[in-house]
Amino acid sequence: MNSVEILANGIALPKQRIESKLLEDRFQLEENWIYDRTGINTRYYVKNEDLKILALNAVKNMLEKINVDVQEIGIIVFASTSTKHLMPGISYIIQKELDIKKCMCLDILCGCCGYINAFDIVRKYIALGEVKYGIIIGADVLSDYTDDNDINTKVLLGDGAGATLLGKSNEKKIYFQNITSEGQKGEILTCNQNSKIFMDGKKVYKFGTTKPVECLKELLENAGEKIENIKYIIPHQSNLKMMKSMSEKLNIDFSKMYINIDRIGNTFNASIPIALNEMIDKNLIQRNDKIVLLGYGGGLNLGAILLEY
Amino acid sequence: MNSVEILANGIALPKQRIESKLLEDRFQLEENWIYDRTGINTRYYVKNEDLKILALNAVKNMLEKINVDVQEIGIIVFASTSTKHLMPGISYIIQKELDIKKCMCLDILCGCCGYINAFDIVRKYIALGEVKYGIIIGADVLSDYTDDNDINTKVLLGDGAGATLLGKSNEKKIYFQNITSEGQKGEILTCNQNSKIFMDGKKVYKFGTTKPVECLKELLENAGEKIENIKYIIPHQSNLKMMKSMSEKLNIDFSKMYINIDRIGNTFNASIPIALNEMIDKNLIQRNDKIVLLGYGGGLNLGAILLEY
Repeated sequence: MNSVEILANGIALPKQRIESKLLEDRFQLEENWIYDRTGINTRYYVKNEDLKILALNAVKNMLEKINVDVQEIGIIVFASTSTKHLMPGISYIIQKELDIKKCMCLDILCGCCGYINAFDIVRKYIALGEVKYGIIIGADVLSDYTDDNDINTKVLLGDGAGATLLGKSNEKKIYFQNITSEGQKGEILTCNQNSKIFMDGKKVYKFGTTKPVECLKELLENAGEKIENIKYIIPHQSNLKMMKSMSEKLNIDFSKMYINIDRIGNTFNASIPIALNEMIDKNLIQRNDKIVLLGYGGGLNLGAILLEY
Repeated sequence: MNSVEILANGIALPKQRIESKLLEDRFQLEENWIYDRTGINTRYYVKNEDLKILALNAVKNMLEKINVDVQEIGIIVFASTSTKHLMPGISYIIQKELDIKKCMCLDILCGCCGYINAFDIVRKYIALGEVKYGIIIGADVLSDYTDDNDINTKVLLGDGAGATLLGKSNEKKIYFQNITSEGQKGEILTCNQNSKIFMDGKKVYKFGTTKPVECLKELLENAGEKIENIKYIIPHQSNLKMMKSMSEKLNIDFSKMYINIDRIGNTFNASIPIALNEMIDKNLIQRNDKIVLLGYGGGLNLGAILLEY
């Protein structure tokens, strides 16, 4: 098995930035009501963009940062909850736009932690030596799927895309995953064609403050790794209070969790790759630092990955 | 790497069987017009069923044939072109219905050969020892996505579901795959939310009679295998003429290709697992026979798998 490493990241955000103040006015809420409950100041909504444009722009942004022959990209996996492209999927559109002659494409629907599933799949193809490079994209346009009158989802969700390029590493890198699903509770957070996202806020909060913690603890136990050795945890940006509660239950300093929900909102599949991209741009993590990607959300699904950057 | 084998298969077809005669009357075509051009006598359309019911019934049909503890099923991958379930996906609904406590679920959108992509993904998780058993489901309800006035698609497409259980094999089994995509030509066969399936019949015919043949030849070359040693090729049931043309180009007897399009029609992701299930029920293949699964279709995508049953 080859070791696999993150080679580059890219993001795309819509041009239209929405301040919480605007939504507070619309819902007749007092000032800071949204920030106090979610930790969100701004999020982005598409205007002239759509899901495939955001996804493609994130990939282009990523490819600007690294010199690779796109013909050596052997797999593209696109994860989303808000796609309207059943066939061809958005991964195929990206193959077309990059004009990659030979490449395996797939779109996956996995709820909010689809980027984690996609990461694990792409890593396997590289680790087994079947492809040289692989692209993972997590993207969602949730403004299309939120009911303007549903305060539960409207104040929380936004649009965005993030992309990651994986490739074989010449150094030995650790990698552990713990990915699972809980279809039994699927009805607490749903999105179907021609319907809006439904969220049972209380039940989602309960899930989000318990199960990801268990998932992460189990991952570290399986890996024989201590949380003290982890430089950063990059959680799905669900809700600031939820992430704070997680850090308390993990008994870690909150600064160990990378947070950008204040600026980006909750973007489902895009949230982890956008966070990862920012951290690398800010030099917060160095090569061989141990980090954990922690996804969780609709499905229900859970996924934690421990890796060396 | 563990060897992986097919442990059981199951299918589900809607109760409503549609004779070609009925469609010939509707389109004011002469008798046998449809059979002469497609090789199809009957296909099935959902009436009281839907995609998730078909998928679940195929899984239940499969599990009736084998004694396994469902709690040991560690991954469920559902492949479709016609899902309306963005979150949770149908794989999650299956997890819920089987009440599997710990299981990784994902739905994939890969055009007509999604079952092949799903097969290769599930196999990897078992081969790497990460899960004990895995379920692959290919299912489509194309009657929902065909325009009643579009003769190109209406006479060809039908509904159905097939499921396969994979597990670790105690014997050494060969396995090779050749899976790729051609997003560049994606516009010749499309399906999007709230639109019907579009097919440029001539271009799809040209693709279907050339690229799958190349894909299969390349697979055999990579595997160092001769076509004479393959007991059966199980092609996606696209169109009888297309499959006949393939066998001519491969220079093989047409009887080496398993055909059920006359009874089932073209069911996209369901066609290979339905064919596989029939062949095993009819004892056409025995343990250790070498077979090839050959998927191709919208995306565009191509996928061939050589395995020992």
